Amino acid sequence: MTAPLIGITMGDPAGVGPEIIVKSLAAMTAPQRQGIRIYGNRESLDAAETVLRTGLDIASLDVDHVDIPGPLPAFGKLDSRCGEACYQFIAHAVRDALAGSIGCIVTAPINKAALNAAGHHHDGHTGLLAHLTGIPSCHMLLASERLSVIHNSTHVSLRDAIGRATTERVLATIRAGHRHFLRLGNPAPRIAVAGINPHCGEGGLFGTEDDDQIAPAVAAARAEGIDVQGPISADTLFHRAYTGAFDLVVAQYHDQGHIPVKLVAFDTAVNVSVGLPIDRCSVDHGTAFDIAGKGIADNGNLDHALAYAARLIAHRKP
Amino acid sequence: MTAPLIGITMGDPAGVGPEIIVKSLAAMTAPQRQGIRIYGNRESLDAAETVLRTGLDIASLDVDHVDIPGPLPAFGKLDSRCGEACYQFIAHAVRDALAGSIGCIVTAPINKAALNAAGHHHDGHTGLLAHLTGIPSCHMLLASERLSVIHNSTHVSLRDAIGRATTERVLATIRAGHRHFLRLGNPAPRIAVAGINPHCGEGGLFGTEDDDQIAPAVAAARAEGIDVQGPISADTLFHRAYTGAFDLVVAQYHDQGHIPVKLVAFDTAVNVSVGLPIDRCSVDHGTAFDIAGKGIADNGNLDHALAYAARLIAHRKP
Repeated sequence: MTAPLIGITMGDPAGVGPEIIVKSLAAMTAPQRQGIRIYGNRESLDAAETVLRTGLDIASLDVDHVDIPGPLPAFGKLDSRCGEACYQFIAHAVRDALAGSIGCIVTAPINKAALNAAGHHHDGHTGLLAHLTGIPSCHMLLASERLSVIHNSTHVSLRDAIGRATTERVLATIRAGHRHFLRLGNPAPRIAVAGINPHCGEGGLFGTEDDDQIAPAVAAARAEGIDVQGPISADTLFHRAYTGAFDLVVAQYHDQGHIPVKLVAFDTAVNVSVGLPIDRCSVDHGTAFDIAGKGIADNGNLDHALAYAARLIAHRKP
Repeated sequence: MTAPLIGITMGDPAGVGPEIIVKSLAAMTAPQRQGIRIYGNRESLDAAETVLRTGLDIASLDVDHVDIPGPLPAFGKLDSRCGEACYQFIAHAVRDALAGSIGCIVTAPINKAALNAAGHHHDGHTGLLAHLTGIPSCHMLLASERLSVIHNSTHVSLRDAIGRATTERVLATIRAGHRHFLRLGNPAPRIAVAGINPHCGEGGLFGTEDDDQIAPAVAAARAEGIDVQGPISADTLFHRAYTGAFDLVVAQYHDQGHIPVKLVAFDTAVNVSVGLPIDRCSVDHGTAFDIAGKGIADNGNLDHALAYAARLIAHRKP
């Protein structure tokens, strides 16, 4: 049996998805390309190649093609047909991943407004993937070479994020991060949990969530044998993790994790969905309508996402 | 008239303050040392020199001496006499700064428990300095070579920090940061204000504070002629500022500003109090009781604080 394929969803056809995919595949060897299936639209890929002139033979690619009715949507324009196409690309890829015919999904960026204009009311990939796989929610992990962070909450207000720093949820996030690192072949990942209040509340002076909610979650995870410490004051924790003290940080809210990762790994961080029944990682940038179709979009982040997908597939249990 | 002195408060005599001061002064030229007055205790400085053997002649230094009754407190031990001494060092320095006989105070670390044990109930330097100068509060600015951040709130719970992101307070923080950069000789500082919710709330989907409270503060500051933008999504803003797009970021809460600065400038960031009637900057580390008196504490951060103080003095209006 050959290694499972990586399935790349093309994302919004009017965004930079088609061109970054063509760039990345053009730079691959033929055997590498044989490990890739694209869930997308052939005409969009042709249009990207026409701009890029990489010499890649689009007809030779393994494409799960979805038709877009009418003339090819223009690059850089919001179009509900693109939102519908995006949805179909992802739905097909999830179907194949659940069936085991692809090993990991790598997603190119979608436009939430286009998705919603097509009648698919989700907050982006995360909600859509949860919906398609029948899972209530998953965890966002940002992975980069020296700093990886899993989030206890993401796209909710900061006020709501505080409410989600419950013992139950923090414990679930620790466990999910732990399992993910085991999956990647790290038998004893060193995990640290960030505090939510400054200085972890300094004994209750500046908030009680660290003592009342987060500390019990860390204790429970330790009782399960997980190598986890915390809560640790967030102001110094990310520096410690970045300089090697920990393999993974549990962040309590979106910006707590995104600020440090984007600061040290702006172009290289990969967004990984942890806790779904399928493997999925993603570029960590948007559709970039302002430059889409010009052939200038950087495919470096997609290459990092593809490399992460390859690691996940390599560590799959047979 | 000679240039105003820098006044260094020695901090907790049982901490690393005495030794980092001796190290920094020993590395100075004699004329540089003549620009420094130490608010501290001579015996503690002698004890540090005994360990360090730098050759510095402690008797030649300009020391505003405060007696500590009884035997010299041991390094690394909590002692209420040290808390009282700390208080006196700072009170004397503030008195002289208000009178204009020193130009800037640089503070070495104090121990809050010792301070409180001596009956001085303050949350640390910031509250104590506000008390001694009769100011209700000031702003903490963390300054480093490529990233400077002023905080809209600091030592309050994250929940309370959200409540402090009011139009009035954010506007006051922008103004304070702007004035500070004017003071430093930057005639048109480029300021960015961080959003408080992920993606600045994404049009109200994830919280309304960005639109309702922060945006009006930015608009009001722009109407005053301040070059300020925002709110800008905090996940990418610090990377943009670090790579040169802005001179100063307004952070909405302690960790939002501390995480990025500590990540890229762990040992070099200087803590500056903005909005007091006197100039004050500080090392950005603690008393380090675990290593105090061993002669191994790094004085690099104190050197950065002294350099910042010298800049503030150089840009003083006559």
